[in-house]
Amino acid sequence: MAKYVYTFGNKTAEGRADMKDLLGGKGANLAEMNLLGIPVPPGFTISTDVCTYFYQNNRTYPSTLKTEVDQAIRYIESLTGCKFGDPSNPVLVSVRSGARASMPGMMDTILNLGLNDKTVDGLIKRSGDARFVYDSYRRFVAMYGDVVLELKPESKEEEDPFEVLLAAKKREAHAKLDTDLKAEHLKDLVAQFKALIKERKGITFPEDPQEQLWGAVGAVFGSWMNDRAIVYRRLNKIPESWGTAVNVQAMVFGNLGENCATGVAFTRDPATGERAFYGEFLINAQGEDVVAGTRTPQQVTQKGSRAWANLQGVAEPERAKTFPSLEEKMPEACRELLGITDRLEAHYRDMMDIEFTIQDGKLWMLQCRVGKRTGFAAIRMAVEMVQEKLINKEEAILRVDPLMLNQLLRPVFDPAALRGAKAVARGLNAGPGAAAGRVVFHAMDAEEWAQKGEKVVLVRIETSPEDIRGMNAAQGILTQRGGMTSHAALVARQMGKVCVVGCEALDIDYSKEEMNVAGRVIRRGDWISLNGSTGEIYAERIPTKPSEVLQVLLDKTLSPDQAESYQLYKHLLGWADEFRTLKVRTNADQPDQAANAVAFGAEGIGLCRTEHMFFEGDRIDNVREMILADHVADRKKALAKLLPMQTSDFAGIFREMNGRPVTVRLLDPPLHEFLPHGPKATEELAEKIGMTYERVHAKVASLHEANPMLGHRGCRLGIVFPEITEMQARAIFTAAASVMKQGIQVHPEVMIPLVMTLEEFHAQAEIIHRVADEVMKETGQKIEYLTGTMIELPRAALMADEIAKEAEFFSFGTNDLTQTTMGLSRDDSGKFLPYYVAAKILLDDPFETLDVAGVGQLVRMATERGRKQRPKLKVGICGEHGGEPQSVHFFHDTGLDYVSCSPFRVPVARLAAAQAAIRSRNKKS
Amino acid sequence: MAKYVYTFGNKTAEGRADMKDLLGGKGANLAEMNLLGIPVPPGFTISTDVCTYFYQNNRTYPSTLKTEVDQAIRYIESLTGCKFGDPSNPVLVSVRSGARASMPGMMDTILNLGLNDKTVDGLIKRSGDARFVYDSYRRFVAMYGDVVLELKPESKEEEDPFEVLLAAKKREAHAKLDTDLKAEHLKDLVAQFKALIKERKGITFPEDPQEQLWGAVGAVFGSWMNDRAIVYRRLNKIPESWGTAVNVQAMVFGNLGENCATGVAFTRDPATGERAFYGEFLINAQGEDVVAGTRTPQQVTQKGSRAWANLQGVAEPERAKTFPSLEEKMPEACRELLGITDRLEAHYRDMMDIEFTIQDGKLWMLQCRVGKRTGFAAIRMAVEMVQEKLINKEEAILRVDPLMLNQLLRPVFDPAALRGAKAVARGLNAGPGAAAGRVVFHAMDAEEWAQKGEKVVLVRIETSPEDIRGMNAAQGILTQRGGMTSHAALVARQMGKVCVVGCEALDIDYSKEEMNVAGRVIRRGDWISLNGSTGEIYAERIPTKPSEVLQVLLDKTLSPDQAESYQLYKHLLGWADEFRTLKVRTNADQPDQAANAVAFGAEGIGLCRTEHMFFEGDRIDNVREMILADHVADRKKALAKLLPMQTSDFAGIFREMNGRPVTVRLLDPPLHEFLPHGPKATEELAEKIGMTYERVHAKVASLHEANPMLGHRGCRLGIVFPEITEMQARAIFTAAASVMKQGIQVHPEVMIPLVMTLEEFHAQAEIIHRVADEVMKETGQKIEYLTGTMIELPRAALMADEIAKEAEFFSFGTNDLTQTTMGLSRDDSGKFLPYYVAAKILLDDPFETLDVAGVGQLVRMATERGRKQRPKLKVGICGEHGGEPQSVHFFHDTGLDYVSCSPFRVPVARLAAAQAAIRSRNKKS
Repeated sequence: MAKYVYTFGNKTAEGRADMKDLLGGKGANLAEMNLLGIPVPPGFTISTDVCTYFYQNNRTYPSTLKTEVDQAIRYIESLTGCKFGDPSNPVLVSVRSGARASMPGMMDTILNLGLNDKTVDGLIKRSGDARFVYDSYRRFVAMYGDVVLELKPESKEEEDPFEVLLAAKKREAHAKLDTDLKAEHLKDLVAQFKALIKERKGITFPEDPQEQLWGAVGAVFGSWMNDRAIVYRRLNKIPESWGTAVNVQAMVFGNLGENCATGVAFTRDPATGERAFYGEFLINAQGEDVVAGTRTPQQVTQKGSRAWANLQGVAEPERAKTFPSLEEKMPEACRELLGITDRLEAHYRDMMDIEFTIQDGKLWMLQCRVGKRTGFAAIRMAVEMVQEKLINKEEAILRVDPLMLNQLLRPVFDPAALRGAKAVARGLNAGPGAAAGRVVFHAMDAEEWAQKGEKVVLVRIETSPEDIRGMNAAQGILTQRGGMTSHAALVARQMGKVCVVGCEALDIDYSKEEMNVAGRVIRRGDWISLNGSTGEIYAERIPTKPSEVLQVLLDKTLSPDQAESYQLYKHLLGWADEFRTLKVRTNADQPDQAANAVAFGAEGIGLCRTEHMFFEGDRIDNVREMILADHVADRKKALAKLLPMQTSDFAGIFREMNGRPVTVRLLDPPLHEFLPHGPKATEELAEKIGMTYERVHAKVASLHEANPMLGHRGCRLGIVFPEITEMQARAIFTAAASVMKQGIQVHPEVMIPLVMTLEEFHAQAEIIHRVADEVMKETGQKIEYLTGTMIELPRAALMADEIAKEAEFFSFGTNDLTQTTMGLSRDDSGKFLPYYVAAKILLDDPFETLDVAGVGQLVRMATERGRKQRPKLKVGICGEHGGEPQSVHFFHDTGLDYVSCSPFRVPVARLAAAQAAIRSRNKKS
Repeated sequence: MAKYVYTFGNKTAEGRADMKDLLGGKGANLAEMNLLGIPVPPGFTISTDVCTYFYQNNRTYPSTLKTEVDQAIRYIESLTGCKFGDPSNPVLVSVRSGARASMPGMMDTILNLGLNDKTVDGLIKRSGDARFVYDSYRRFVAMYGDVVLELKPESKEEEDPFEVLLAAKKREAHAKLDTDLKAEHLKDLVAQFKALIKERKGITFPEDPQEQLWGAVGAVFGSWMNDRAIVYRRLNKIPESWGTAVNVQAMVFGNLGENCATGVAFTRDPATGERAFYGEFLINAQGEDVVAGTRTPQQVTQKGSRAWANLQGVAEPERAKTFPSLEEKMPEACRELLGITDRLEAHYRDMMDIEFTIQDGKLWMLQCRVGKRTGFAAIRMAVEMVQEKLINKEEAILRVDPLMLNQLLRPVFDPAALRGAKAVARGLNAGPGAAAGRVVFHAMDAEEWAQKGEKVVLVRIETSPEDIRGMNAAQGILTQRGGMTSHAALVARQMGKVCVVGCEALDIDYSKEEMNVAGRVIRRGDWISLNGSTGEIYAERIPTKPSEVLQVLLDKTLSPDQAESYQLYKHLLGWADEFRTLKVRTNADQPDQAANAVAFGAEGIGLCRTEHMFFEGDRIDNVREMILADHVADRKKALAKLLPMQTSDFAGIFREMNGRPVTVRLLDPPLHEFLPHGPKATEELAEKIGMTYERVHAKVASLHEANPMLGHRGCRLGIVFPEITEMQARAIFTAAASVMKQGIQVHPEVMIPLVMTLEEFHAQAEIIHRVADEVMKETGQKIEYLTGTMIELPRAALMADEIAKEAEFFSFGTNDLTQTTMGLSRDDSGKFLPYYVAAKILLDDPFETLDVAGVGQLVRMATERGRKQRPKLKVGICGEHGGEPQSVHFFHDTGLDYVSCSPFRVPVARLAAAQAAIRSRNKKS
């Protein structure tokens, strides 16, 4: 018979850390902590199999589940000595979700379950604290009403109705804080809450703890499919099929008085990666108070506390009095906590994120998991843990999401501009980097404005899971409340967003859509700037500058020794290069781009788009003259003017690449892209090149295309106008010969675009070979070159064996291959792709992440067929996907020789390629 | 050792009729005639292997060829008793091309080879006719100069320089006809011709017969790759790899005096298919005089001669004197000829085209081959030969090119309009059908005007192989000279062009670009009309009317018994239906189209495009209102107005199809296609639907797409606007229920367009199933329906196994599948596809004939993968290729269930499907 429930408690457990798939991350780690002898409140985990069953069977449970849960409840009772629902000595439980991957705040949680009008008395008797019990009770009723009974605000404008009643009660009782409310006020609130539920939902609040428990379990399983969770999974690429487990655990209370506390800690600094314990706690509070960011938490260590006070401008006696550290307040529990966190990091060999509660001075661990971190922190931790010999290089490489490298390349404020600027306030540096944008106060506005192309900073009192789309759309996030572990901080860190939290100097008024700060009013639409690395906020738009890494690599304005982040970058990328087998090239059209790419580690140019050169200076006039020519002779005349320019462009690139291979693509875009639009521009051009307006206009009109993407472009230009191919080939080989004369090696790879038949390839290659021979004869310089093609049409992939008879290399143009394979215009799909992603018809934008299932088949097919025909066929990819880690992984697995991506993506591709090599080796062994 | 040369002569031969691949058609049949004991001048064939060798080895020959040719020459010498190059008793030979398939006039021929200044004397002595010998000599020198030494006119304007000298000589000698020239004139001409060659080409005319022979052989092999031959092969889909053979044969002379003749004959009438011998000849002439049409030939039989005279208005004594039949002139040779042709038809079991020469009263057969014929004739012969038990039904089916059926559906002149019209002249009815167009006198003009969309009739004194492109572009062809076997007649028949030849009443002046006929001048650009079935010519534009078959099937204005061509059609198509396994459906959007298609034999509708209905009457306003709606509610309101209209459309179609399956495709085109363009139309629309101009304009602008082909269309509309899908599904099922209530069976197949993922299909199918259930519940009518998809994107083909999980049928949209697979916009490719076809990069327009090598792979793949997932998956095709015979063959071989094509193509598809079934059965057995 299938086992659905796994108990843990008292340093023993039925589960283990490696059972995450079944127990979820939280459940598996609760079990593991027990096995490590760490104090954990007893409980049990309902496995993810039940979630799968739940959704496959119309939201019902396996028949044996009830019995197993009953037994597990008795197990909790036996360890706590209390009874579930017993009026005289009740045990209360929490019911929490726990999926295989952490999804903070996305799913539902219910605390203090088991309270009812009878157990309340027993608990008061046991705790001797009526106020605490009614505070727990009113929290429980509100949570249950919200989560299980779905009593939500009915409109965007309405506040949480439970909060409204609470605020009214506080006014009535002249209470400033929640904690100022007395037991009788809270008891009143419980009754008001229950009445509200009855009124709004027509449901009597369930007094039976069993009914409460099953309601909560159903709500948690149900929350797997709520909108927030779906969006979160999509953003984080978590499969829906995983499901969540449900953890039921005996409550311990951090809100049972002044010798109680609750907190969250990281074994290293999640923002900077520094090897320093980082913890926050609140006295007399429940866990969600810390996470929700409603109160500003205190620091666990004294050192941390002083640093925090310094940042906030809180002087010492005041700090020790108002914000003392746990180390000062409860030294013994703190020592135990630090001991446990050390053991956990050593055991898990990673930075851990833990939750703890101290009840009556006794420490309980409620959760431990691998901690989320910024890109900076991930890189620093990975590199330092190797240096500490905690992990090996492979593990270090696998621990850094390649896209996180982008954070090292993120702009910082222009120091010059910053000198004049004065921060108006300072918060916590939750997400590093510099951002500037216009203020919006609602997540929906952030989405809307961003869609219109505005850069925005989302400013909130605190964020909630409902805000994640808006956070994703914003340049930066700023909150008035909350610590480094608040929702805003966690989510921003993961998204790699610039984020400043807990800036209490702000006074935000949602209704007026403005905020007061340091005596000035900032309104919706005003510019502000955030320094996510320091926490500083500026009431102005501050220009940004390249990162430290860029300053070493490109600007050379910093020496490598000066730049800490450069050192980390250098280590990690160096290790990546040891492991990867896939080469990384870059897409560059100009000598300076080529130089940048080489600095980033590019091993060649995979795509040099010759048409970009056509727009330089006034050569566009020659290009237009060439296009408008009616006769071959006129066209050749115009091409002759372009020849020396293209030659010198290529020479510049060849020199910079210094012997690395350079793939030059022949002219690709439809000719009308080079022509002016509108009567005025047409008239100017006509005058410039001495044609009549009518003739220019007629020519422009005749070149118009219904579907230019599928029109007269690519090698189709060279077929109809072979003289263009000839000019370009001449420029390439002449440049190569001249650079080689200077003693620099050149390996040109001439790429024929948009080939669909061998015959097209042949016709173009014939010209290239002829011109190459001519130039070699004229210059006496032997040039080793390859002639190949882009595979960017499905037909080319299908006919790869044919085409490889003559083509010496393939380069997948995955942008166009995606457009044609999916029949999806990149320029137009913006109108409907969002619906597709929202409706889960597509999980990713196929222009961002390669559609492996569809387009990937053609990539694999073409590679196999091409190599079968020509075993030494060089195969690469030069679409945008060349710098996207998931796609790079696929390209490695498919056996490509190289990926080519934009210069700034070269480090990402290098790391991704190393991960792919390590993972596929691990899979094999 | 390979054998390259095959001799024949004196009723024996090394080759056979079934060795066409090696010997070409001419060579194989010359051998076969020998084996049949028919008199054939001796000779030999150099095989097509030599042609292959020639092109693979830089135009050189196998080393053993020379020896074999020498031996074969000796074989001819032994049979003729003359010697090649012997001054006293020379044998002359002809050197002709002969490919596997006939390519009339496309390649080169040289006659009278072996003549030089010495052999001339021997031949004069032997023949006793100096005039004949010098006539042959001057012909040979001119031919050799043209073909081997490439002395051609140097510009379009220049006349043939040999003809210029001939004309000058005629003026000088006051000779009206060539035959008026005397021996000394002709001898002079030989000298002038040789001098011209020396002057223009710098070459001394070769006197050595061996040199002449090898020059001629090389020229014939070389002519395989001349422009005319290349174009002809492309038009007739003859592979370049086949190559040509070369036939060298002892000359016999039809121009050796009045008891000599040469002629061409068909065993049945090639124009009408009538079972009646049809032959033409010229007294004292060489074969090319008949084919070239320079003299109007006489009829072989007396019956034929009288009919011809009647048509031409030549009275009896005049006929017998000037145009006597061969039967009258040389009764014995004629009897032998008729006996031979009867044997040949019985032996080859097909209508034969033969060439003969009578030298000094003795009949020689020079060539026999299966005769080309019009579509009418092909059908009549096929049907009648089955009735004569000469061939079986399978053979009859295979003998008719399915596209020829179109000739039966060709318009005729509107009889009413014709009543008033008076023919200005009459020629020979070489290509049936009625055509009207504007006169052009040059093939290049025909091409140019046709490209501009003009209908033209090409009028020539006589046509030559250089004219075939222009002939292809013209509606009809009219020549002043030439018989039914002239170049114009042959080529037009094959192209299925309306053609009238030999209309001597015309007096054409190329230089003025006008012609005189019956006292009136017709100039370039004037309208004329041709009746290719009667030979009548009208100096006006006469409206056309449907064919007889159409009048029976569609108009019902003729009874089946009245219509002869309908009887032939009915027989042939009836047999086709016995053999074919592929079903044939039609693409139809309206009840009347559906009715037509059923009359043509359609077994269902494979594609009903719902958007065509959107343009009917004023419903376009409702469509536009729907598109311009900003909110779902407004859109639904507009859709509600469209619902009853679509419902009644579907009901009409379902009624007409009377139980046959009907595939309805949901809305496909991008919405902007329904909107007005330009300010005026926008303003009108705005007023009509009560919106501001600005709003309508903004909406139109926002719907603009860069690549609409790859844009927001197909099921992407239904995903974003599910209410459209819902309306259409409701219309389909409501219509089905209402028609079924009337006792008519309905089998709707709902087709979701442009699917690329299973998820899209699922989302749309969900709506369809829900609406179907609702309608069935509301009406109490059970409807059996299928839900399927078009496979028109490469990704859909690649993911066919996935999509078939839910799709119950596939229908290949090969138009769009071709566009996306090849990255080729149908609308734009006209600008470069002609270059592609000219440069032989593509052999066919892929929108006409399916690209089997590329697109075909996806069709095969999707069919296999889909059927693997769902063995009973119904698979069809509804692109234009569904009515193209070659493509239909592929679809049969791929195992599709049906093809769907336009109503008029249904007969073509039925015949093509039968041919495919028979051919693939023949291949297996």
